Amino acid sequence: MKFGIGMFGDSGYDTKTNRFRDPEKRLKEIVEEVIQADTLGIDLFAMGEHHREDYVVSSPETMLAALSTVTKNIILSSGVNVISSADPVKLFQDYAMIDLLSGQRAEIMAGRGSFIESFPLFGQNLNDYNELFAEKLNLLLRLNKEEKINWKGTFRAPLKDQTIFPRPKREIPVWIAVGGTPTSVLRAAQLGLPIMFAIIGGNPRQFLPLVDYYKEQYALAGHAKDKMEIGVHAHTYIGDSRQAVLKAYYPAYSFQMNRIGKERGWSGSFTQSQFEAGMSMQGALYMGSAEEVTEKLINTIELFGLTRYIAHI
Amino acid sequence: MKFGIGMFGDSGYDTKTNRFRDPEKRLKEIVEEVIQADTLGIDLFAMGEHHREDYVVSSPETMLAALSTVTKNIILSSGVNVISSADPVKLFQDYAMIDLLSGQRAEIMAGRGSFIESFPLFGQNLNDYNELFAEKLNLLLRLNKEEKINWKGTFRAPLKDQTIFPRPKREIPVWIAVGGTPTSVLRAAQLGLPIMFAIIGGNPRQFLPLVDYYKEQYALAGHAKDKMEIGVHAHTYIGDSRQAVLKAYYPAYSFQMNRIGKERGWSGSFTQSQFEAGMSMQGALYMGSAEEVTEKLINTIELFGLTRYIAHI
Repeated sequence: MKFGIGMFGDSGYDTKTNRFRDPEKRLKEIVEEVIQADTLGIDLFAMGEHHREDYVVSSPETMLAALSTVTKNIILSSGVNVISSADPVKLFQDYAMIDLLSGQRAEIMAGRGSFIESFPLFGQNLNDYNELFAEKLNLLLRLNKEEKINWKGTFRAPLKDQTIFPRPKREIPVWIAVGGTPTSVLRAAQLGLPIMFAIIGGNPRQFLPLVDYYKEQYALAGHAKDKMEIGVHAHTYIGDSRQAVLKAYYPAYSFQMNRIGKERGWSGSFTQSQFEAGMSMQGALYMGSAEEVTEKLINTIELFGLTRYIAHI
Repeated sequence: MKFGIGMFGDSGYDTKTNRFRDPEKRLKEIVEEVIQADTLGIDLFAMGEHHREDYVVSSPETMLAALSTVTKNIILSSGVNVISSADPVKLFQDYAMIDLLSGQRAEIMAGRGSFIESFPLFGQNLNDYNELFAEKLNLLLRLNKEEKINWKGTFRAPLKDQTIFPRPKREIPVWIAVGGTPTSVLRAAQLGLPIMFAIIGGNPRQFLPLVDYYKEQYALAGHAKDKMEIGVHAHTYIGDSRQAVLKAYYPAYSFQMNRIGKERGWSGSFTQSQFEAGMSMQGALYMGSAEEVTEKLINTIELFGLTRYIAHI
């Protein structure tokens, strides 16, 4: 069982000045936090990718490269790379270098993208949302396994007898991050790839059928059971007490939820009672006192047979 | 006047084992060397981009990001980024992050590419060699200057009302690296961009007409003379004596020259007398004893009115 922390690199909106915080300071803060996590023995750090003012990291690989030289043991993962709008060749080159620079600590977590700002930036069409992911993932996996590559697809120039230099010394672990779409779960299972469930709402137990579906399809596809890896990535915040969390974290959380909710047309605004429901044993927020969060975590680990938990902070 | 070191990250071919050296060790060595250069007060480090087994760095930006957290003062530049085959949006995002991570020490040196392995990797056509560079450079400069961007070109998807996040706090310096093509010199001068002459053969004095052409066209285009920057990047190696350099460096240099010469169909093989001619005051190799190299450097600085010298090591 591996425990990690993950973040999106929230810019932090200063309601006093009505401006986002200085991105330079924020990036340095993240570097310091990950150095600290590495020192504390946390297994993994996962860095998100966004292309909007709310978040300061547009390329997880740049951040992970920056961290590769100042950390010793922590796994450096994306969380996630929106591979639908990335170029798998460039992505693989970057991670090959990070893996070599970090002593084989790089990992790619591939997602289709919940935020979709990268599509117009890199010229992708949202109508191809699923096909883009499938094709780019296929190329990424080929580049990872095969030294000499011949490949042809729809969304990118073909490759004829090409090799990526420098090559990593091993296959770089590629995880699939899913929100709750069964076809994504099926794809990960059939490919035998480790899966990360992002739990951001509802009752974690609702994910059980998807986890079971993954296990069943993974076995059906003939992959080695001892290599199966299942993770959960969920909002996590530990305070001295439930009340302390409400006081320290609820305002920032609800502010960002309302901000995004407004953009996406969610009705109503995020309330404290919703937050408290999330904190309960049936909720998606792994928040509260250390005892409460530990109990909830143990439950989830046992329920799903987890091998990895990432605390989104 | 700024002094820097530059490198291509040569893999190092081990003639005993007939294999390239371990890329992981080589990358770590480069990191250590740059930390050392930063400590010694060297102004700048320039990292090359290659996509072949001879060199271990496919993306300068990954290397510069890795260096951003372990250095304090040294400028972190590419040397060069082959922007013809890169995506300017991705490139600018990466450098924006490096600039923020490093406290405004990132620079981009843009080149058309002497090595052309990146073209089939990223799906570019060599027939578009010049147009690709012009268009990508144009987009890169626009992204650098304008917060909200509307852009349309031939080789990449258009951008409509897009902004790159995070934005750097300043315009990232973009240098143009030229080999000896007058149109490249003209382009840099007209755009008012700093220029870096890569001197890899012949007599440095042969570059004087090009340097004068740059100065003339720069002034004609109305750019501020006090902002004009001219650099030279040349092979540099300082030993105890001329003989010591011949012994320590000639074998490795000739090996690589012959390796590339064979690929490119150069006739004959690189000889010691060619190397010695290069080391003379009329040659392109800034090599020899400290006194000899210093004298040659002073000559070149005065001849061209240099503001920057990068020792390619």
